[in-house]
Amino acid sequence: MGKTLAEKILSEKSGKDVAPGDLITVPVDFVFGQDGTMPLAIQQMEKELGTRKVFDPQKVGAVCDHASPSPSEQVSNVHIFMRRFARENGIYFFENGDGICHQVVAERFAAPGKIIIGADSHTCTHGALAAFATGMGSTDVGAIMAYGTTWLRVPEAFRFQIDGELPKHVTSKDVFLHIVKEITADGATYMSMEYQGSTVDKMSVESRLVLSNMAIEAGGKVGLCPADEKVRAYLKEHGREGEYRPLAADKDAVYADELFVDASRLEPMVAYPHRVDNVKPVSELAGVPLDQVCIGSCTNGRLEDLKMAAEILKGRKAHRDTRLVVYPASRKVLADAIRLGYIETLVQAGAAVCAPGCGFCIGRTVALGDGEKALSTQNRNFKGRMGNNKAEIYLSNVAVAAASAIYGKITDPREVL
Amino acid sequence: MGKTLAEKILSEKSGKDVAPGDLITVPVDFVFGQDGTMPLAIQQMEKELGTRKVFDPQKVGAVCDHASPSPSEQVSNVHIFMRRFARENGIYFFENGDGICHQVVAERFAAPGKIIIGADSHTCTHGALAAFATGMGSTDVGAIMAYGTTWLRVPEAFRFQIDGELPKHVTSKDVFLHIVKEITADGATYMSMEYQGSTVDKMSVESRLVLSNMAIEAGGKVGLCPADEKVRAYLKEHGREGEYRPLAADKDAVYADELFVDASRLEPMVAYPHRVDNVKPVSELAGVPLDQVCIGSCTNGRLEDLKMAAEILKGRKAHRDTRLVVYPASRKVLADAIRLGYIETLVQAGAAVCAPGCGFCIGRTVALGDGEKALSTQNRNFKGRMGNNKAEIYLSNVAVAAASAIYGKITDPREVL
Repeated sequence: MGKTLAEKILSEKSGKDVAPGDLITVPVDFVFGQDGTMPLAIQQMEKELGTRKVFDPQKVGAVCDHASPSPSEQVSNVHIFMRRFARENGIYFFENGDGICHQVVAERFAAPGKIIIGADSHTCTHGALAAFATGMGSTDVGAIMAYGTTWLRVPEAFRFQIDGELPKHVTSKDVFLHIVKEITADGATYMSMEYQGSTVDKMSVESRLVLSNMAIEAGGKVGLCPADEKVRAYLKEHGREGEYRPLAADKDAVYADELFVDASRLEPMVAYPHRVDNVKPVSELAGVPLDQVCIGSCTNGRLEDLKMAAEILKGRKAHRDTRLVVYPASRKVLADAIRLGYIETLVQAGAAVCAPGCGFCIGRTVALGDGEKALSTQNRNFKGRMGNNKAEIYLSNVAVAAASAIYGKITDPREVL
Repeated sequence: MGKTLAEKILSEKSGKDVAPGDLITVPVDFVFGQDGTMPLAIQQMEKELGTRKVFDPQKVGAVCDHASPSPSEQVSNVHIFMRRFARENGIYFFENGDGICHQVVAERFAAPGKIIIGADSHTCTHGALAAFATGMGSTDVGAIMAYGTTWLRVPEAFRFQIDGELPKHVTSKDVFLHIVKEITADGATYMSMEYQGSTVDKMSVESRLVLSNMAIEAGGKVGLCPADEKVRAYLKEHGREGEYRPLAADKDAVYADELFVDASRLEPMVAYPHRVDNVKPVSELAGVPLDQVCIGSCTNGRLEDLKMAAEILKGRKAHRDTRLVVYPASRKVLADAIRLGYIETLVQAGAAVCAPGCGFCIGRTVALGDGEKALSTQNRNFKGRMGNNKAEIYLSNVAVAAASAIYGKITDPREVL
């Protein structure tokens, strides 16, 4: 019987012919935490396992991204604690400003067939490179840092068959928002969300990273795309072509559920407060006044996103009443975007372009005020997410965000560009 | 009898032939506050004067710089309060990321002979453009916003005669650190510090802004430089050549005190914890390990500073154990620095380049950890200044900072570059 992409990876890694529901133990190829979760993982290692020594320093990373640069002495002390652990063990350490964990892991470590565990819910991002990647709590991550293995229940799979050409100003973000609207925020709980079809095949890896990044917003355990020549090119660009191999589900794989998406009929979508699956076409929400527009995050802070924003904002200004905040996803993204002129364009348009990190998305270095409304390209709009539980968050793609920044209200880019 | 530069401006503005000690009332040409002080000034206007209406919206500004972008809902609410006041009155409003108040006021409003009052101690910065500029408390600033006038005691003057060519890697920052070492932190209390001589004449306005910015660190009421062709060129570059006029002290002015400085004999200087007048040549402090190096602030965050940093860091990396944080002084500075390639160089060197603002200097958006040591190009090293009273702060010019970032310890740029 054919295997889903998740079953293929887990069979190979466990050395067994796995099926959904099986409990297996697998080696972990890369494990990481960030400054919100890593300190607890380290403490758990020490307390529960009696060790501060990682199983393999080449397979462990720590990233200062959630509050970066550190905005308080408390966070700075947490960073000191992480830095000391990293130096002791010789693990990979990403400093304030190096980037968001999911982006640096995509650039440096993710590859087809790997198992990647992060102490962050959006670790599913790396499924775009056909890695079985998922988030776990700090306690699990502490155990993995010590032993290099973890147990998993093999997930059932949900196939998303996406075909047709995306219309202008419609992106992979809209594909996902459409999906989560259809299946709801718990529609794929603990499932392997497997994205397939001609639309996915044509997408850049950067666009696929959006689909995989948001899998957890529908409850997905992982969000997988096939490894193809686009993945090879991405790995080559990042100096890791040798880690490439083609990988896809078998044609006769068995899925627990399926959804067919006609990409050519999609519109730009917006998720409105306070749930990611509160989704409407942008046209139905146009006109909502915005105090802040945010471009960036591990969802949409990559080079193609900054390019899209710069192309729309070139020679224009953000609206006087709307703050425009930009967080590139990594140092590499930022350096490339500077060289290509995108950052100068955004700065001239009135953006506050900040050092790479999570920034606005979790409200620890940038926070909204009472009663404010923000539109963001991030992945979550839960109450309080952006540092204020009396604020409202809308989610969209980059084109909607850039157009909305110009007009100071939710704006359909197809109407104005 | 000849007049000092301060006496000249105040005589003209008060319509009287003033002498030190006179109490006078003068019209204010520009008054501003920042997000730490402006809310209190607005509240004082309302409470004490019963008005929220400013005397002339073209002469009032509000700047979100001290905590920008806002790191908490509390600060965001303060920004909302300021923004509402600004919109009501039609005053100049500078958003998160537009820059530090002293830099945007230098670019947009400061000019020879003007009286500029800011609710910030470093308002003396604008003396570099021969403006009588000084900081006042929020209550005074509230009254000025309502009435457009203020009272002053005419200060005595302290002449600093600075001649000779500055050696390589020695800047106006070192001139000031030498001065404050000589006269101490209260050596010019309530005096007009008047900088003169061939060294000042040769300095760019950007370099002079450092001398004036730091006047308050020796207690100066103002820190004045003559208005000459360099000032004309600066104003022209900022679209305000019409505001130029030559202005200098009379040759026979009477000074309460004088200090002669031979610039050709100066070395790069470093102020060590916890006083600005704890100053030693860098060679005597070389080797102190550094956790963070900061380049920017209203003292040294201008284009020539970023150029100097980029030239030194080009093709090199900040030391692994030393975080490099850069805050450009304004949006214009940042845009120019991007276009000239400085920002890409700094990002490649490992810097966290943040959106323009006060950032690290006051520890409200970037803070040190316990026991950490930082070297910064800012103007103050008081205990707790950078967000942690268990940290230590050293102050230097940009060349020392950039060289120290590379080596991870206080480094004499003359030794290594």
